[in-house]
Amino acid sequence: MTSQTQPDTPDNIKDDIDVDGVSPQMGSVTFTDALELDNGRKLAPFTIAYNAYGELNAEKSNAILICHALTGDQHVANRHPITGKEGWWSLLVGPGKPIDTNRFYVICTNILGGCLGSTGPASIDPQTGAAYGLTFPVITIGDMVDAQARLMDHLGIDQLFAVVGGSMGGMQVLEWASRHKERVFAAVPIATAAWHSSQNIAFHEVGRQAVMADPQWMRGDYLKHGVTPRNGLSVARMAAHITYLSEDALHAKFGRNLQNRADRTFSFDADFQVESYLRHQGSTFVDRFDANSYLYITRAMDYFDLAAEHGDVLAEAFRGTQSRFCVVSFTSDWLYPTRESREIVQALNAVAANVSFVEIESNAGHDAFLLDEPEFFATITGFINSCAQKRGLPAA
Amino acid sequence: MTSQTQPDTPDNIKDDIDVDGVSPQMGSVTFTDALELDNGRKLAPFTIAYNAYGELNAEKSNAILICHALTGDQHVANRHPITGKEGWWSLLVGPGKPIDTNRFYVICTNILGGCLGSTGPASIDPQTGAAYGLTFPVITIGDMVDAQARLMDHLGIDQLFAVVGGSMGGMQVLEWASRHKERVFAAVPIATAAWHSSQNIAFHEVGRQAVMADPQWMRGDYLKHGVTPRNGLSVARMAAHITYLSEDALHAKFGRNLQNRADRTFSFDADFQVESYLRHQGSTFVDRFDANSYLYITRAMDYFDLAAEHGDVLAEAFRGTQSRFCVVSFTSDWLYPTRESREIVQALNAVAANVSFVEIESNAGHDAFLLDEPEFFATITGFINSCAQKRGLPAA
Repeated sequence: MTSQTQPDTPDNIKDDIDVDGVSPQMGSVTFTDALELDNGRKLAPFTIAYNAYGELNAEKSNAILICHALTGDQHVANRHPITGKEGWWSLLVGPGKPIDTNRFYVICTNILGGCLGSTGPASIDPQTGAAYGLTFPVITIGDMVDAQARLMDHLGIDQLFAVVGGSMGGMQVLEWASRHKERVFAAVPIATAAWHSSQNIAFHEVGRQAVMADPQWMRGDYLKHGVTPRNGLSVARMAAHITYLSEDALHAKFGRNLQNRADRTFSFDADFQVESYLRHQGSTFVDRFDANSYLYITRAMDYFDLAAEHGDVLAEAFRGTQSRFCVVSFTSDWLYPTRESREIVQALNAVAANVSFVEIESNAGHDAFLLDEPEFFATITGFINSCAQKRGLPAA
Repeated sequence: MTSQTQPDTPDNIKDDIDVDGVSPQMGSVTFTDALELDNGRKLAPFTIAYNAYGELNAEKSNAILICHALTGDQHVANRHPITGKEGWWSLLVGPGKPIDTNRFYVICTNILGGCLGSTGPASIDPQTGAAYGLTFPVITIGDMVDAQARLMDHLGIDQLFAVVGGSMGGMQVLEWASRHKERVFAAVPIATAAWHSSQNIAFHEVGRQAVMADPQWMRGDYLKHGVTPRNGLSVARMAAHITYLSEDALHAKFGRNLQNRADRTFSFDADFQVESYLRHQGSTFVDRFDANSYLYITRAMDYFDLAAEHGDVLAEAFRGTQSRFCVVSFTSDWLYPTRESREIVQALNAVAANVSFVEIESNAGHDAFLLDEPEFFATITGFINSCAQKRGLPAA
């Protein structure tokens, strides 16, 4: 059983959030049938919020699911209702863009565990009438994907034309291609890995400890006390943000430039532009993100290990796949370096899957997948068009 | 004017701190004549604590100054009085070691701004009778070196046979070779750079924000309130510690291994060994380090830019040098990558300095300079012996 709010775009919202004429349909569906989680627990009810762009064709064969990253959300191609910024993938998704909303029905859900409409630790636990906090179950990337699959059931979409995502979004793409093989015509895992490295776990642990060290975290119960662990979450975001860039990108962008001053102040002010930038990143993040969601989602990423789910043989995760894969990495991405994409490609080759692999030259670091990278866009455009032809969908 | 505590090694201490028969002479000197700081302020009085090993020869020509890194101290080759661990460079410094205390008089000072006997923000401000806290002046690497030079004056050492240091210790070596050229016969900057990169400033800023976000920091006045910002300093240490290693080292050491458990706990416990390790690094660090010292020393590193002190031309920092240089980097050090050592070498070449450069193959990351790296030890041994011969000191 499900209940839903109709995807709708009231005029007063639409005026604010449209970008380049993109009108998202925004909705959410609440499922009362429990979701069986990887940890053995059942979650019910649960809600999945999503934005959709474009029109689903009569055959329901033109749907593309976009999977967002750790701190992303469903506002992929429209102005963000909180920050007012353009959608996080407006460069890639929209009318005439590489993922063309004139041709495809593009869906992006807020992930399970998130904080923008889907059920997560900030949601009300119907058992208690208060926010879950740390009583929310620890979820996995697989759980996020299973929740998305329930939404596809609800929408009557048997097979997604494509599942596309970068970073943690790429992990979801891989889980889709493994758990729901027959429902994925094409898969595009970008700047991602089949398992979370020791170093990445380490950075996440620093972020979690920063949140938990904040007295306003209150063992996860801050919402009940009407406070927010702003400082801790801000530090977590600052540490993580460094890993999204590259030393070259930081050097090119900031170098040792001073922030609106002629000389060092011999104080702990933000003398350097890079300090000012990071502080800004930290403080704006806490306005739009829930601290416990940050803990749960980083944990899900740390737990992600697709090989471990298949007897430590990654290829087994994909055995029998008929999907077409396009694996993309970026040269300066040190969070998910190219060698981790190559492992995915090798596993796919081992089961004779149809796979393309492209390493894009970029000095922008991990964040390259969100930026204006023409070679990347050309890769996505080419792959999508080629798959559309094979799927019998209209050409561009 | 100076006052001093005699270097002494009471038996009850010596039993605890000797390693491999190394008996440090531990002392401190308090200078009443002010130190003129780079920020224009004067600091008086100030104390420099130091350990010494071996014997100064009659000509006072066999002294080697070891400069410690951010979280190091003067306990270079003896058991640490707080942690009980072997000296941080016991592998390199001691009888028969590459820096041989049977032949050389080895000195290591706790740096100005430190917290193990030298004057720093935790010291009592004689003007107020309370700890300086944030009223302590913001110091520079140059200030640290000038304070060490005052100690050498006091000891009657006109010229150091060698100045050796890694990481921030290497920055001090470079300042010695620039500010006090005639007092340095040989200089060994290891795993370091002539300026602190944007990315390194960024990581330091995260650490400082973590400390300052801790309510027990109390705007730097925690000592007056009898508390310690343990949580914040611990998070700062955890974030920094990741940068001292390499992804390869972390992967080899921990991989995705679980900590004393068969499976994931689906909780926020330290499931992974790397999490447990980092938490341990954080919590033990706060037992031996002052949070404000951490702020001041990271700030000094961020401010370090030897070229900027010389009209943005690094070579000018070394013009006229007669010192012999041995520059060492490690392949997997991403905090101070080899290209930053090459910049030092190029600047030295530009002024026709006598310079050797060695890049050591290691997967241990920045911390390699503290570990058992035979090629590194061979490099130091060869360079020291060659310089000793030129200086007319006895052979090994």
